[in-house]
Amino acid sequence: MLIQILGSAAGGGFPQWNCTCANCSSLRAGTMRGKARTQTQIAFSPTDGVWFLVCASPDLRTQLVGARELSPSSETAGHSPIAGVFLPSADVDAVMGLLHLREFQNFFVFATPAVQRVVRNENPIFRVLDRANPPVQWQTLASNRRIGCHLSENSGDPPTFFYSTIPLAGNYPDYASEDVRRGGSPGDACVGFLLEQENKKLFIAPTLSGHNSEWIKLAAAANVALLDGTFWSDEELLATGRTKKTARAMGHLPLSGAEGLLAQYPKDAAGRKILIHINNTNPILDENSEEHHAVVDAGFEIAYDGLTIEL
Amino acid sequence: MLIQILGSAAGGGFPQWNCTCANCSSLRAGTMRGKARTQTQIAFSPTDGVWFLVCASPDLRTQLVGARELSPSSETAGHSPIAGVFLPSADVDAVMGLLHLREFQNFFVFATPAVQRVVRNENPIFRVLDRANPPVQWQTLASNRRIGCHLSENSGDPPTFFYSTIPLAGNYPDYASEDVRRGGSPGDACVGFLLEQENKKLFIAPTLSGHNSEWIKLAAAANVALLDGTFWSDEELLATGRTKKTARAMGHLPLSGAEGLLAQYPKDAAGRKILIHINNTNPILDENSEEHHAVVDAGFEIAYDGLTIEL
Repeated sequence: MLIQILGSAAGGGFPQWNCTCANCSSLRAGTMRGKARTQTQIAFSPTDGVWFLVCASPDLRTQLVGARELSPSSETAGHSPIAGVFLPSADVDAVMGLLHLREFQNFFVFATPAVQRVVRNENPIFRVLDRANPPVQWQTLASNRRIGCHLSENSGDPPTFFYSTIPLAGNYPDYASEDVRRGGSPGDACVGFLLEQENKKLFIAPTLSGHNSEWIKLAAAANVALLDGTFWSDEELLATGRTKKTARAMGHLPLSGAEGLLAQYPKDAAGRKILIHINNTNPILDENSEEHHAVVDAGFEIAYDGLTIEL
Repeated sequence: MLIQILGSAAGGGFPQWNCTCANCSSLRAGTMRGKARTQTQIAFSPTDGVWFLVCASPDLRTQLVGARELSPSSETAGHSPIAGVFLPSADVDAVMGLLHLREFQNFFVFATPAVQRVVRNENPIFRVLDRANPPVQWQTLASNRRIGCHLSENSGDPPTFFYSTIPLAGNYPDYASEDVRRGGSPGDACVGFLLEQENKKLFIAPTLSGHNSEWIKLAAAANVALLDGTFWSDEELLATGRTKKTARAMGHLPLSGAEGLLAQYPKDAAGRKILIHINNTNPILDENSEEHHAVVDAGFEIAYDGLTIEL
């Protein structure tokens, strides 16, 4: 399985259009040792010429145009090689990119019932996905079920890969209705994914609320774990003066602190652990910062746009 | 007034993520004499350090990050210099970019009652604009009214510029409800704009249905007219095999033909006439094509990303 990180920043990207925090200002001025990043977008290819997306980034069009292997060609009979999109939540930065995929192509969208209610029932703008003939097909994700996905033309072959949906006890986005909040199963609002192929495992959770801990064992047992690297500290956004919400109130376990991701993550985990969904305010973006070195010294990698991983 | 064309393509951009038409294929292969284009986005600055947008392109984040004068700086007290957005319709490629402008900054959105109903009432995802404190402020556009916009700190000064809203008799987007369609005033679905400053006039209509003709005199009297260049011919999309809709059925007057824009446009119009919102299938994108030369020979310019116009 080939994995491409097309985007690695949190909502808004880095730099953010209206932000002059230390990171955004020094990146714009060209004085930072660090990289610009588009909003989190993961792509994986379980077999030649077929790609799936995890998240639907607001920057998806730019990301796809820049990735030749994700563009249509004569080898893909003139269609995009994108077969499906896995949605971890209904957050704007995880679903807005679906609107980039409108027009003339059907594919699968994998989402929990709650995420489908927000996107399909409450926001008719996403009906533009029905313009394809046949229309986009929605597949319902159920927590903790392991599903085989068959891509071979030979029906006797084993599944090409397996996916499991991991409930992460996260928040609904602020624009979801009370009906959705009341009606959803616990854990439906925000999920992670475990992908398996030939005994190799990839764990994906761009958002980790820290409100449950079942995911930790799965992540630690994976060959590669893509993990929520949104905020360094719980108070990080307060310092900008623009919000009164902590990282945890926004549904993100911070990296630092006694209860943070770095301290909680099992020290004996043997796989690669890669931080993704990094907010523009996070000091780890500055490669000269103490925080950047602390993360690297703890054995974590920091995802960047263009990172390719072979599983 | 300074005008920046940040994007010049129709919905989907050029190349389009899932398209292998002659233009998209040859652009990807590097064999075309022509330029990649992001989705239509116009910005104008009526006074130093203040910018307004016309349309909210799906590519807006990438466009803003690439335009230094539209980025926040110490001169703009750490805020984006964007003061407002004019919406010509509720088409996905004209409103999706509002979602890029979420988080922590208020600005004005100018839209007709029908466009507001689609965006604000029927699609709660746009409520993320209310996260700013104070929230984004909606201003209602009324057809054929000329409004002065004051940006000077001195209340005795005349308006910095004037804007008028021109009804264009276009379609509602396919995702709008029957309620909106029934309830709207004629001409509310799709409008153009006339901007005036110090006797200079800019006419803007990225979508022209051709169902009315009042706009022609206004466009022809302007110093600069940005005009619907979506399709060369009425049958252009039929040839792709992907839709059964003509250009006119999609709400776009084609460029060619006896009733097309080139034939209809007054020959004695003295101002610059610039085609924008150009679809990926339009042969004028190929600078070696007959159609490209026909347009240029008729005195029209073809907008490209990065074009700057001084009014």
